[in-house]
Amino acid sequence: MADVITARAKNYSQWYLDIVKEAGLADNSDVRGCMVIKPNGYALWEKMQRGLDQMFKDTGHVNAYFPLFIPMSYLAKEEEMAEGFAKECAVVTHYRLKAEKGKKLEVDPDAKLEEPLIIRPTSETIIWHTYKKWVQSYRDLPLLINQWCNVVRWEMRTRLFLRTAEFLWQEGHTAHATAKEAEAETLQMVRVYQKFAEEFMAMPVLVGPKTDGQKFPGALYTLCIEAMMQDGKALQAGTSHFLGQNFAKAFDVTFKNEQNKEDFAWATSWGVSTRLIGGLIMTHSDDNGLVIPPRLAPLHVAIVPLGKNDAERGPSIAAAEKLAAELRSLPRHEFFSYEPISVKIDTAFDKSPGFRYAEYEVRGVPIRVEIGPKDIEKSACAVARRDVPGKEGKQFGIALSGAAEHVSKLLRDIQQALFDRAKKYRDERIVTANTLDEFKAFFPIEKGEDEAGAAPLKFVYAHWDGTRETEERVQKEHKATIRCLPFDGEVEPGVCLFTGAPSARRVVFARAY
Amino acid sequence: MADVITARAKNYSQWYLDIVKEAGLADNSDVRGCMVIKPNGYALWEKMQRGLDQMFKDTGHVNAYFPLFIPMSYLAKEEEMAEGFAKECAVVTHYRLKAEKGKKLEVDPDAKLEEPLIIRPTSETIIWHTYKKWVQSYRDLPLLINQWCNVVRWEMRTRLFLRTAEFLWQEGHTAHATAKEAEAETLQMVRVYQKFAEEFMAMPVLVGPKTDGQKFPGALYTLCIEAMMQDGKALQAGTSHFLGQNFAKAFDVTFKNEQNKEDFAWATSWGVSTRLIGGLIMTHSDDNGLVIPPRLAPLHVAIVPLGKNDAERGPSIAAAEKLAAELRSLPRHEFFSYEPISVKIDTAFDKSPGFRYAEYEVRGVPIRVEIGPKDIEKSACAVARRDVPGKEGKQFGIALSGAAEHVSKLLRDIQQALFDRAKKYRDERIVTANTLDEFKAFFPIEKGEDEAGAAPLKFVYAHWDGTRETEERVQKEHKATIRCLPFDGEVEPGVCLFTGAPSARRVVFARAY
Repeated sequence: MADVITARAKNYSQWYLDIVKEAGLADNSDVRGCMVIKPNGYALWEKMQRGLDQMFKDTGHVNAYFPLFIPMSYLAKEEEMAEGFAKECAVVTHYRLKAEKGKKLEVDPDAKLEEPLIIRPTSETIIWHTYKKWVQSYRDLPLLINQWCNVVRWEMRTRLFLRTAEFLWQEGHTAHATAKEAEAETLQMVRVYQKFAEEFMAMPVLVGPKTDGQKFPGALYTLCIEAMMQDGKALQAGTSHFLGQNFAKAFDVTFKNEQNKEDFAWATSWGVSTRLIGGLIMTHSDDNGLVIPPRLAPLHVAIVPLGKNDAERGPSIAAAEKLAAELRSLPRHEFFSYEPISVKIDTAFDKSPGFRYAEYEVRGVPIRVEIGPKDIEKSACAVARRDVPGKEGKQFGIALSGAAEHVSKLLRDIQQALFDRAKKYRDERIVTANTLDEFKAFFPIEKGEDEAGAAPLKFVYAHWDGTRETEERVQKEHKATIRCLPFDGEVEPGVCLFTGAPSARRVVFARAY
Repeated sequence: MADVITARAKNYSQWYLDIVKEAGLADNSDVRGCMVIKPNGYALWEKMQRGLDQMFKDTGHVNAYFPLFIPMSYLAKEEEMAEGFAKECAVVTHYRLKAEKGKKLEVDPDAKLEEPLIIRPTSETIIWHTYKKWVQSYRDLPLLINQWCNVVRWEMRTRLFLRTAEFLWQEGHTAHATAKEAEAETLQMVRVYQKFAEEFMAMPVLVGPKTDGQKFPGALYTLCIEAMMQDGKALQAGTSHFLGQNFAKAFDVTFKNEQNKEDFAWATSWGVSTRLIGGLIMTHSDDNGLVIPPRLAPLHVAIVPLGKNDAERGPSIAAAEKLAAELRSLPRHEFFSYEPISVKIDTAFDKSPGFRYAEYEVRGVPIRVEIGPKDIEKSACAVARRDVPGKEGKQFGIALSGAAEHVSKLLRDIQQALFDRAKKYRDERIVTANTLDEFKAFFPIEKGEDEAGAAPLKFVYAHWDGTRETEERVQKEHKATIRCLPFDGEVEPGVCLFTGAPSARRVVFARAY
């Protein structure tokens, strides 16, 4: 498929768009900034939802659903939130159209809403307005609620999955009796995201707080997971916010505590979105197409029977069907979210084997099994790993009698191999800058960073004086932002590279999506 | 809970609202016509989604996601659709608010959209606009796509689950090369809905086409499932539409057929919504609270250990934990959508046993197991069925050693018993009216139909002359509508009760939600 997918080294942005298109993941729609998530892309999202949802439930959360519409006055109640989201709100002002025969359809001017409604950009305001009714006593706490839904942020520059006006996500909103409990929840959920990123997506992440300049509007602090894409840019992949009592105060959510005193409830919120699909693509895929870690693969195994004529094809198909049945009836396992292993038999004999193989390569199916006349003679098959394309990743002479177990085990091995490879790749690109010149060299201000031969960027540990002014200056001058103050790693004081002022610790700078 | 739930015989509407409230299913929000689906209600919806989604996939469908926003001009392209939905559209006209310090938040007049966007009331238009890009040849067909999402119809009179401005649903949208194939799909999907209604919801339904007056705007015909609620009213619970080539023509979706000739694609669409939760409530629940069929129950079994003091409670709790572990580790079974049986142990010894039992009754948990000191003496427990409240449904002396298997089997029996009971109830209230006087007697124009003692209504088979005029007259004069022309049952010609004109067959009249 070299002709349909641009090589990464040639143009990374175009490579990304080619993968999204050729793997059938998403399309731009004619509605500004909104995407159509195509079946292959949505199947990935369903797998992600299933994995995350189980982790949320295992940590005591339940799902609920709150209205799409938020009265404008709710948003106004939390000042930072109003400022943070006002510029990107879709606003509903009317509730009826006028359809008269022979006339053009138009907005009915008589159906203007008394108060405009905004489409939720995030649901803190409507949810905390509701929590007021649900919380009276400490016995009503904690509320541990999650919502799967669509949200809208009217972005001006959009990119499929990474930044779109409408996107799908989950948003957790919890209410607690104490700050301590809310802070523990904030930490727990960013660790859940880390676990999901690493164990399901095979995507290593840094974990830690954002700076004040990068935190969520209305939060006291924001914890995040940050992943490195293959071009060395950072992707903020999930956030967990400690909201203090800001929303409880804005929406008057008080409760009687154990000492029978009125107090405001403590809040967290946390979310990940369809943006993760963008992260998945840019962590593992190659110039041949998408690569999907087995735990998230909608299709695990493509079996391609081969043969020049019906006489040769018959036994190949029969062996393929037997293997498929064996794979599907293996005991349901946690690794596969207790779903059967998903198998497809490809009988498109009118196409060449190479063409058939390429289809599953482009789509990122983790394992391809080939069964042809020569294999049948030996009661064997060939097994090709998607994560190691070409001959290197192909095993010949796998006995059909043990093939189902072999493939099932190989799926787990691939999962681990993908994580190990991504972690090695990332770790090799985490560096330290001890002088401003070193820093500058890591973040050249090039003209076209997507041009042929652009080297991958790096995550750069550097000292920073802790002020928002300096952070903004670095962003302006070097196009790099502070991604987080990682929990892991050494914390030693030093001197800010940009101002010479004292620095409490090194932080991680990167260019970001 | 006689004091919190109004008796059905006293006020049916209030009973419904009491169940929704006391079982924690939903709340009205302050946003006009929008509901908050609370955790217990959402858990039911998740179970429904899981069952339906598997049935969609088993019939070859895949999920995808299309934009929330529909340009007004798309709606205008299909005339019947524009007329059908114009009066209830939420319209987005602006994409930004103005937030200035010290000033009131307001809609930014400079951020007016060139073309207003409506919030999808249903997605035929945006989806067929997209299909134009996806369909060129018969090889691209069929497209068998489903979407789970929220939709908005600005209803003036709303009722939790049954009619709300925003609701959750699934909408299938398929494209086919021939009318025959599309019609087969239309029929297949209404049969899928029937199967889901009867086997998961234990809710018997009539299946058949709607009249032209009641069909979906833009459809050639609509097939539906209609259920009888306990008050004898009908609930349209699911619809499947044969859309002919209307949308393909409106959005210019053509393809080269096998004869290499250009043709317009054939369409179907089909949907069910959170309205099903309303149907579930009004099919099975009683004056003690919600009753949930086991296949859809988020919690299957509540185990209530008993004892006056720690010495008595210890063994009860230990036995409860052993039973819970056994239940959870039973082999995963299709009946439970391959999820473990869900069990909760209630250790709220500070509340009276009666209070604890009532909680699970109100919430509709199918089985309650009680284990007290006397049971422990006999290595036994008591098992109470939710569908048969009181002593009649309570089994004593069930040996703990076989209790897990017993409970698992009982869950299946309860499922069947609920269906049988609902079917008997409905069948007893399906009648035939051979004269207008008989018809009138079945549909009295009473003052307050929710008043104490109002007898349940009936489904009335009667002859109708097939015209929209007569149908509208009956609706106006008797407040009854034609629910469907059932596939099952005798079809014999006769004379219209209302006009004396010839009638091809009897149709089913009912009052409806």
